[in-house]
Amino acid sequence: MNFELNKEFIEQLQTAIQEHADVQIESMVKELHPADIAEILGELETEERQYLINLLPEEITADTIVELEEDERGELLKDLPSQEIAHSVIEHVDSDDAADIISELPEDKQDEVLSNISDIEQAGDIVDLLNYAPDSAGGLMATELVSVNEELTVRACIEEIRKQASEVDEFFYVFVTDSQDMLKGVLHLKKLLLAKDTELIKNLIEDIRYVKTDDDCEEVANIMRKYDLVSVPVVDSIGRLKGRITIDDVVDVIKDEAEEDYQLMSGITGDIDSNDSVFKLTRARIPWLLIGLAGGILGSVVIGGFDSQLIKHPEMAFFIPLIAAMGGNVAIQSSSIIVQGLANNSLGLDSASRKIIKEVLVALVNGSIVALIALIYNMVVGQSFALCLTVSISLITVVLFAAIVGTSLPLAFEKIKIDPAVATGPFITTTNDIMGMIIYFFVSFQCYSWF
Amino acid sequence: MNFELNKEFIEQLQTAIQEHADVQIESMVKELHPADIAEILGELETEERQYLINLLPEEITADTIVELEEDERGELLKDLPSQEIAHSVIEHVDSDDAADIISELPEDKQDEVLSNISDIEQAGDIVDLLNYAPDSAGGLMATELVSVNEELTVRACIEEIRKQASEVDEFFYVFVTDSQDMLKGVLHLKKLLLAKDTELIKNLIEDIRYVKTDDDCEEVANIMRKYDLVSVPVVDSIGRLKGRITIDDVVDVIKDEAEEDYQLMSGITGDIDSNDSVFKLTRARIPWLLIGLAGGILGSVVIGGFDSQLIKHPEMAFFIPLIAAMGGNVAIQSSSIIVQGLANNSLGLDSASRKIIKEVLVALVNGSIVALIALIYNMVVGQSFALCLTVSISLITVVLFAAIVGTSLPLAFEKIKIDPAVATGPFITTTNDIMGMIIYFFVSFQCYSWF
Repeated sequence: MNFELNKEFIEQLQTAIQEHADVQIESMVKELHPADIAEILGELETEERQYLINLLPEEITADTIVELEEDERGELLKDLPSQEIAHSVIEHVDSDDAADIISELPEDKQDEVLSNISDIEQAGDIVDLLNYAPDSAGGLMATELVSVNEELTVRACIEEIRKQASEVDEFFYVFVTDSQDMLKGVLHLKKLLLAKDTELIKNLIEDIRYVKTDDDCEEVANIMRKYDLVSVPVVDSIGRLKGRITIDDVVDVIKDEAEEDYQLMSGITGDIDSNDSVFKLTRARIPWLLIGLAGGILGSVVIGGFDSQLIKHPEMAFFIPLIAAMGGNVAIQSSSIIVQGLANNSLGLDSASRKIIKEVLVALVNGSIVALIALIYNMVVGQSFALCLTVSISLITVVLFAAIVGTSLPLAFEKIKIDPAVATGPFITTTNDIMGMIIYFFVSFQCYSWF
Repeated sequence: MNFELNKEFIEQLQTAIQEHADVQIESMVKELHPADIAEILGELETEERQYLINLLPEEITADTIVELEEDERGELLKDLPSQEIAHSVIEHVDSDDAADIISELPEDKQDEVLSNISDIEQAGDIVDLLNYAPDSAGGLMATELVSVNEELTVRACIEEIRKQASEVDEFFYVFVTDSQDMLKGVLHLKKLLLAKDTELIKNLIEDIRYVKTDDDCEEVANIMRKYDLVSVPVVDSIGRLKGRITIDDVVDVIKDEAEEDYQLMSGITGDIDSNDSVFKLTRARIPWLLIGLAGGILGSVVIGGFDSQLIKHPEMAFFIPLIAAMGGNVAIQSSSIIVQGLANNSLGLDSASRKIIKEVLVALVNGSIVALIALIYNMVVGQSFALCLTVSISLITVVLFAAIVGTSLPLAFEKIKIDPAVATGPFITTTNDIMGMIIYFFVSFQCYSWF
């Protein structure tokens, strides 16, 4: 039952495609899950991909296209006429996937595809979904769901579910509404199975967390994770049931958000992975390297400004990497804790100033340890007392400064609605490199003039 | 239906606890989900927490304790006698949560609690679960599930499900086995509802992905995510159904893995958040700062070794931060792509050498751009030709070196079973700082001797 992709399989398939051995190809992929076929397609060349897709049964084709990476899907749909996209793909998939696929198409093709959908109700649902912001609950939800009126009996409810279930792929909860479509609660299938036929549904329903169509999808993810929900109902601003979001879509949101934050910290913009082209990989990284370059050049101007000090005490240069590295490390530590807390909604109720005070305390302890070790090392190896003091005092100061910047910058970014994750990685290390140099040379003037 | 924690609520609750206003307290938390109560407990002092817990009904207490953070739970259970832990907590929760809670207790208390569980079968299940590695599928699964024999009719199956469902909290799939307990497939509730009463279950079952008890839980997460599973059956080495893992547990695995990688990259060890104590926050960070310190000191030795060069050309010091920063940035970019690919199992089928070649290409492009800009800048501001060349040649070399190290180190770590995420963050920046200095001064000797 479990398939694992390997090189031999791909090579065998490629040979079969070259030889147009359709029967062999079909038998190789027949039993596979669309997610596996999508993975296989990702390893093939464009023409091979096209060839294989054409051999798949229509139902499988649609599900496979849903599973593809966005750029692979775009390439595949580019050459397909709008009518075929509507009939062979859109009509076979859930409304949320349909809306996603259509939103990726060029503007003019979107309307063509929509007008080619045979089922007017389905087309209407998709148009409604396209109106929600892509990163809102409305943009994430699907309209396919099973819902029953609270006034039904168990027997009538089961009949109703049978009717609706034939149109819905899979469902885990039955949502219960009143006659105005207002969400009243959820009916667990377990309760339905255990209840008497004549029992009224309204006596069996349980409270369920809901989200609103304009809630942010990160918020939806936090709610589903907190309450261990498999499916969450989405209501409009007056409480009418509009759709549902299932956990598999939210898992992707959680994964994507985490990856985005990870990539931002490592100085990469845009959603890339190691299989992307050299051009795409280069483009995603160069902006942050240019920021690093600008910072480095600014740093050289700063150090250049302390030229005379450096000529008098060239040994000061030895510790430039240490001061720069330590500031960067501490700033990243502080900012990543805040960014993670903001993303998880787990910062608690402490005020920003209390958080900064806490970080300053941590920095004071860590800075003192590091500065003390550096002091002992420098005295043992016989550096001048002025240099010993300069390095250790600078270390504490830089670490403190880095902790304050690292804590307050993401909090400030969040306030002014910039993604706080931007305030990690190269941005914050560069800032601290420059400040570190200013602090280091400023401290050195004091120390060398006194000792 | 939706509760949001705020400062006023906590203050009101704290006042009520101080005044022992039990009726008011009970009315404040009565309608809340255990996850909300756990969040509230996280904001209270130890004695307040104890007081509130004692007021909760037993069923809610158990579920709330499951939802607590590990350290809060430990503190709470520390003072509870083993008998009470068994009867008031363990007997009310699912086997996977029970095993987790027991595994957190001190060794001697574990046996006491286990021997106090009234239901021998439940105790046996928990003991079995405790034998699996905590990060394996066996360690993650619960034994509560609904399974039926493939030979049953739909009518008999519904009867059987009714019987089993009363003991299981919630279920989404019915697993189907043969008379030897071997997993045969899954029965979707939808199919059950739509089928005729006399139909045999074996004609309704579908294939389902399964995992084995000793599979790694990251692998389980990847499978559930790939195939959009809400629940996955776990089988032993010969295919007998042993338990099931639900998506909510896997979401936590995904989240935890992502956070661990994020924290490792930012130089933090251990699972901490901003609400932890200053001591815990300090301890989680100091190891990486010490690595940074050691690297910085080593860097000072390297630069000290090129002492004479620096006295002759003090302007070389200006660009030390630039060279160090650029190497660190590129190394982190390269390593994070690999670490993410390894975590997602999305590296594809390319060999390690092809990946390194690709990274070298990207580095060559980015390094050239950065070096060219630096060259133009340095010539415009009138640096000596030797310094201009030194900086730009060093930049390309450092960037190339960083890309190779950043790509190969995590791959090598994975091979020798060290978490590749360790090869990001301070570890890799420190390595590249030192190498950067060696390259910079080595190049400068060539450039200054020729021009």
